[in-house]
Amino acid sequence: MTYCIAVSVDEGLVLTSDSRTNAGIDNVSIYSKMHVFATLEDRKLILLSAGNLATTQAVVEQLRRDKRENALVNLNSMQYLSEAADYLGRVSIEKQKRHTEEGGQSSFNATATFIIAGQVGAEPPGAYLIYAEGNSITTSRQTPYLQIGESKYGKPILDRFVKMSTPLDEAGLCSLISMDSTIRSNASVGSPVELLVYRKDSFCFEEYYCFDADDEYLLLLKRRWHEELRNAFIALPHYDRSLAKPLRDGL
Amino acid sequence: MTYCIAVSVDEGLVLTSDSRTNAGIDNVSIYSKMHVFATLEDRKLILLSAGNLATTQAVVEQLRRDKRENALVNLNSMQYLSEAADYLGRVSIEKQKRHTEEGGQSSFNATATFIIAGQVGAEPPGAYLIYAEGNSITTSRQTPYLQIGESKYGKPILDRFVKMSTPLDEAGLCSLISMDSTIRSNASVGSPVELLVYRKDSFCFEEYYCFDADDEYLLLLKRRWHEELRNAFIALPHYDRSLAKPLRDGL
Repeated sequence: MTYCIAVSVDEGLVLTSDSRTNAGIDNVSIYSKMHVFATLEDRKLILLSAGNLATTQAVVEQLRRDKRENALVNLNSMQYLSEAADYLGRVSIEKQKRHTEEGGQSSFNATATFIIAGQVGAEPPGAYLIYAEGNSITTSRQTPYLQIGESKYGKPILDRFVKMSTPLDEAGLCSLISMDSTIRSNASVGSPVELLVYRKDSFCFEEYYCFDADDEYLLLLKRRWHEELRNAFIALPHYDRSLAKPLRDGL
Repeated sequence: MTYCIAVSVDEGLVLTSDSRTNAGIDNVSIYSKMHVFATLEDRKLILLSAGNLATTQAVVEQLRRDKRENALVNLNSMQYLSEAADYLGRVSIEKQKRHTEEGGQSSFNATATFIIAGQVGAEPPGAYLIYAEGNSITTSRQTPYLQIGESKYGKPILDRFVKMSTPLDEAGLCSLISMDSTIRSNASVGSPVELLVYRKDSFCFEEYYCFDADDEYLLLLKRRWHEELRNAFIALPHYDRSLAKPLRDGL
């Protein structure tokens, strides 16, 4: 499993990813799921990947090769981020099919999902989620984030605190908390945690963090969040026991 | 979908359930998922249900009928809660099979899961989760709760705050918060929210609450939890931006 988040707010983008991959519970490895591409100066693109590792590696390799060979369609030829999403969807479908048709067993799952984010030319920064079927969605002002992989545990905190006006620092903090909740609940999501902050119109990836499992800041953040939650919980009003009723017996 | 929780701690049990059922997103109804049975005085049993409504209704009806007709195996004949879980598993499988074999379409899903909780004779109170396959698990001192239905959104809060030593009032509050997070994130989980608190060795269900969507306490709790979380989030230490590095370009 995997957990990646892309937050797309007024100030720019925040990308977060875990680094655990597993082929069965007894075969766990560390792979970065944050892929950056050397592109022309008028664009900056970052890819987050989830799902079958062979598929995601094949897709990343194809994107790099198309770019190097200056193929008709490649990451340098795009004028819009949505074009990159379409292109990525086509490549993903192609790679998934190849592995499934060429001797895949019935239980074999070659599917993968991606997030492509960044800024192309005069467009504002953005992010697209590419489903295993190759179609894609982007964010909205009401829902300024996308998730791939194990999305449920970490969703409530994003829903509560990420708005279009949220500063990048705060969106980064919220993403780390969302990642912490997910790592706590799903053993197949794990550190190092990568965090990339992209400021609108900067066209550079200067603010990148990689937090190992024993990173002092990450440990402090986990502990403090747990303590703060505990305090929040203790401060809650109790229900009034005088309003309790007996539950009448059924038949 | 559905969300039900059974907390089994030193002081007794806390059962919580939502009341929304849906057959497709366009067919939503209200049904209680908390079923109580009139049993002998040496036992007190409560059933929580999730999954196909026809299956769960058929199972509840069979349990009532077996008891009324004093069948060889029925809720009054059990000496242990684990026997009740086995019995429930058998009835569940039977009802699921009947509906699937008798003309079910391939997309038809008759599966259901249950939690049976309560106290039988001299045994301490307990809870069992019965899977769709008919097998069952109970709680442990490390994990003193069970969930059925949409379990992920509300799991982190239970993991953080429910211990064997947690007082029943606190376990009830934690269950309501867990339910609130789930209702917020999954539109197929909804009020009224039912809450039943069972004190060990009391052999009565005297402390029952039913909170409608517009219940004043529930609205206050939602608002206060959101505010407290906001305060908790604001109090967190930020990562040190001076430690940021550039993300080097890929190929």
